[in-house]
Amino acid sequence: MKFNIALLAGDGIGPEVIDQAVKVSNAIAKKFNHEIVWTAAITGAAAIDEVGEPYPDATHEICMAADAVLFGAIGHPRFDNDPKATIRPEQGLLKMRQKLGLFANVRPTFTFPSLIDNSPLKRERIEGTDLIILRELTGGIYFGERGRKDNGNTAFDTCTYTRAEIQRLAKLGFEMAMTRSKKLCCVDKANVLETSRLWRETVQDMEKDYPEVTVSYEFVDAVAMRLVQWPNSYDVLITENLFGDILTDEASVISGSMGLMPSSSIGVHTSLFEPIHGSYPQAAGKDIANPLATVLSAAMMFEDAFGLKEEAELIRAVVNKSLAEGIVTEDLSGTNKAYKTSEVGDWLAKNI
Amino acid sequence: MKFNIALLAGDGIGPEVIDQAVKVSNAIAKKFNHEIVWTAAITGAAAIDEVGEPYPDATHEICMAADAVLFGAIGHPRFDNDPKATIRPEQGLLKMRQKLGLFANVRPTFTFPSLIDNSPLKRERIEGTDLIILRELTGGIYFGERGRKDNGNTAFDTCTYTRAEIQRLAKLGFEMAMTRSKKLCCVDKANVLETSRLWRETVQDMEKDYPEVTVSYEFVDAVAMRLVQWPNSYDVLITENLFGDILTDEASVISGSMGLMPSSSIGVHTSLFEPIHGSYPQAAGKDIANPLATVLSAAMMFEDAFGLKEEAELIRAVVNKSLAEGIVTEDLSGTNKAYKTSEVGDWLAKNI
Ligand SMILES: CC(C)[C@H](C(=O)O)[C@@H](O)C(=O)O
Ligand SMILES: CC(C)[C@H](C(=O)O)[C@@H](O)C(=O)O
Repeated sequence: MKFNIALLAGDGIGPEVIDQAVKVSNAIAKKFNHEIVWTAAITGAAAIDEVGEPYPDATHEICMAADAVLFGAIGHPRFDNDPKATIRPEQGLLKMRQKLGLFANVRPTFTFPSLIDNSPLKRERIEGTDLIILRELTGGIYFGERGRKDNGNTAFDTCTYTRAEIQRLAKLGFEMAMTRSKKLCCVDKANVLETSRLWRETVQDMEKDYPEVTVSYEFVDAVAMRLVQWPNSYDVLITENLFGDILTDEASVISGSMGLMPSSSIGVHTSLFEPIHGSYPQAAGKDIANPLATVLSAAMMFEDAFGLKEEAELIRAVVNKSLAEGIVTEDLSGTNKAYKTSEVGDWLAKNI
Repeated sequence: MKFNIALLAGDGIGPEVIDQAVKVSNAIAKKFNHEIVWTAAITGAAAIDEVGEPYPDATHEICMAADAVLFGAIGHPRFDNDPKATIRPEQGLLKMRQKLGLFANVRPTFTFPSLIDNSPLKRERIEGTDLIILRELTGGIYFGERGRKDNGNTAFDTCTYTRAEIQRLAKLGFEMAMTRSKKLCCVDKANVLETSRLWRETVQDMEKDYPEVTVSYEFVDAVAMRLVQWPNSYDVLITENLFGDILTDEASVISGSMGLMPSSSIGVHTSLFEPIHGSYPQAAGKDIANPLATVLSAAMMFEDAFGLKEEAELIRAVVNKSLAEGIVTEDLSGTNKAYKTSEVGDWLAKNI
């Protein structure tokens, strides 16, 4: 098969970790006789510096023409403490999500047996954890009307959801639950918010189409508790944009393997695959960042975007082998030898 | 001294745990020669059943006339899965917060050395944790305009904040930081929300009035991570209503002592003291619920509402003694004898 992949390395450690995923993907293509055409494009702070805009039209065209987008990370500290900055890297991310129609962010959380003791949580609390949070990504308070009144002394943001937006996300959740344990949890704040009541009502109406799925409804504050108490009691969770932002980050801590967690964003026009970690500016350019989350995001891409399960499984197997043999970066090496980002990538590619 | 305390037992285990706090408070009053006049009032599902309204005017009058309010818990499962219910116990809570002007919810999280191993988090991650989350309680998306459009197919909620609301809450935060480690963290989502940008701007403007306080600004998703990674890196956190709802519940898991965590809500007209746990309907009427969080909320009341530090310290000392001697309810007794809620209360009152 032949694929066009848009390559958005972004800021900070983005370019370094993306490089390793490219090496591994090329090794896969060679082994399985696929052809990959990579097209690089700029985004984030890097794009602001070059063309004054974090998600330029040229980048958007490249993404629209691609079969999938492989994404590194964006964000730069020089924008963070300036509430009045008018152009920020994050705007690029939001614009990209909206223009590509990336309506569902899929965030698996699972444990690696060899790394389980890195977790801040006790082993017995997290063993067997294998959950997926499906976060709605193009609606809610992220994209509602916002502004100031009263000479700037009053600010407002609006959270809006339509039944169709909720159905689209929930459908994915029900379908995912059907392929897993048939348990779905709808996370909302229906005891306060009208949008949450629409979420709950819509999901309740859909239950009849999936009679085998057991649906529970939980408040976001209760989930924020139970996620760190009994993460392995969850399977598929669906939620709105802002709750998803908070809960996916909270969940990323559970496994103790944040540097290994991949994610995908399913879109109307294309899909995007990225590590869940940020741009980690302190490490940029040092060849020390852990590339495994990005490599595992490439595995998700082969499986979910191209339907190539065998290819994906091979990548995962080689990643597990690198962990077992200690071919890892300094965040995971403990008192053993730490490998460079590029060395880990080379090793993985060679072992494909 | 003489105090008028409004007693709002509420639903579920509320009445049982409140009873024990009353016993202990009366023992304190006797020992220190104070006079307490308790006035009971209905609220929550109990009040809906009696008068069709979860925070009746008569209850409000009693609270307005009181020097402090001691509150149990409200909520009943029969309202939870009905998104179309028009009267809910939670509305009583929100109305009470608004009418009493309870603008700041103060939630300490600390560890009890004897209970530290109950935490889902590892001991070395939480030892020394002693943080306070100050949650804004009468603004934001909880009280903004909300509704439906498009024949009910579109829902919206509005989050609004004024500079004055933020200043009032932040002032408390700065003052609290001054009496502690002089570290303040402002939690927001200023990379997306306009209300968050107003929060950040307002707090930044106040920094010059508290030159000794070191202020950090963190995004809510990052805090949701760090709270379970390194809770002891935080001291005082300030945040808006909805973020506070999620983060205080998440933080409540840290110490492993959820049944022991008190809270207060500081108001314009009076202050309210309550355990952080809910109404726990499965345990209602069984005399098994842990009353310590409510008893420790009474200690906060003596100290913060009445300025009686010695009285508060004595309550805390007796609670610690009950833990050390194993006079505890079944949630904490392990394989030892479990005491009844009322037995724990009697023991505490006798030992004052
Ligand atoms: C950078 C920010 C706008 C973004 C979000 O809040 O969605 C990030 O936190 C994420 O989760 O991808
Ligand atoms: C019951 C609910 C409305 C309430 C809130 O969200 O404020 C509760 O979760 C709390 O934190 O006191």
